[in-house]
Amino acid sequence: MTALTSQTPEAIYLATTLKAWDVWIGRANKFLGSLSDEALFQEIVPGKNRAIYVLGHLLAVNDGMIPQLRLGELTYPELREIFITQPDRAVAELPSASELRAKWADLHSRLNALFSELTPSQWLERHATVSEEDFALEPHRNRLALLLSRTSHVSYHIGQLLLMPRP
Amino acid sequence: MTALTSQTPEAIYLATTLKAWDVWIGRANKFLGSLSDEALFQEIVPGKNRAIYVLGHLLAVNDGMIPQLRLGELTYPELREIFITQPDRAVAELPSASELRAKWADLHSRLNALFSELTPSQWLERHATVSEEDFALEPHRNRLALLLSRTSHVSYHIGQLLLMPRP
Repeated sequence: MTALTSQTPEAIYLATTLKAWDVWIGRANKFLGSLSDEALFQEIVPGKNRAIYVLGHLLAVNDGMIPQLRLGELTYPELREIFITQPDRAVAELPSASELRAKWADLHSRLNALFSELTPSQWLERHATVSEEDFALEPHRNRLALLLSRTSHVSYHIGQLLLMPRP
Repeated sequence: MTALTSQTPEAIYLATTLKAWDVWIGRANKFLGSLSDEALFQEIVPGKNRAIYVLGHLLAVNDGMIPQLRLGELTYPELREIFITQPDRAVAELPSASELRAKWADLHSRLNALFSELTPSQWLERHATVSEEDFALEPHRNRLALLLSRTSHVSYHIGQLLLMPRP
């Protein structure tokens, strides 16, 4: 990364925002690393989603950022039905813990590479779910807004996951 | 607010980030409005913090933004001990639900007024817990970073609160 001290204000805005994303993905990584494969299949709290479902949900939602940011196709389109459309336990056979761990690592590497290719100005371009006409009137519906929304979506679910009994 | 379409890139960065804060405070307001005073004293899930403690904690932490952003003194210094230093149930008598609701509304109005006074460039100035020397080397330790961190702190706890049985 270019030294922040030599950057423009918008570059510092962007670097600060990407750092917040990294912090929460780092917390998710740490949580994922702290649970055994067996523990991943435990409920967060009695009667609620299992940890593996929540992590699969974050994986599928974060993968969705790629088309939503207009940066390419979904990496794992098959995960949407399992972890977004359907609730936990509706799908009899979930991906294994090891498959989910590998996809998690691969996706977040891919996202980091894609994010680093966008300039600060490109982050202010529209995201995919707003039309060019609407975006002209509502320029805050930009890629940055999507990144902020997904960062807080990660922290929302990390808050839940950390209610689990820890080893 | 000035029309976003006429704003500089850094102003759009800031407006987008403040909008994300507003979204999560709006969700917290909605949650707070959906619970009776009695329900506020229920545990989120068995054996965990009560909703009133979590909301009091968010109130005290968000109040802390004022000195941390170098914008003034704490509004409710007495809440820090109850809702940050001490865990739930360590303090025998919590503020009443109605007192907490009123302070919540007042604080977030005050924060909005303070936030709106800062220019986009002032948001890139250092926050209070970094020295001027360190900030010269690490310009991402700015007020914006604190806002992003507190936004995700709200969403983290809203994720937990929404595990409560709802009416």
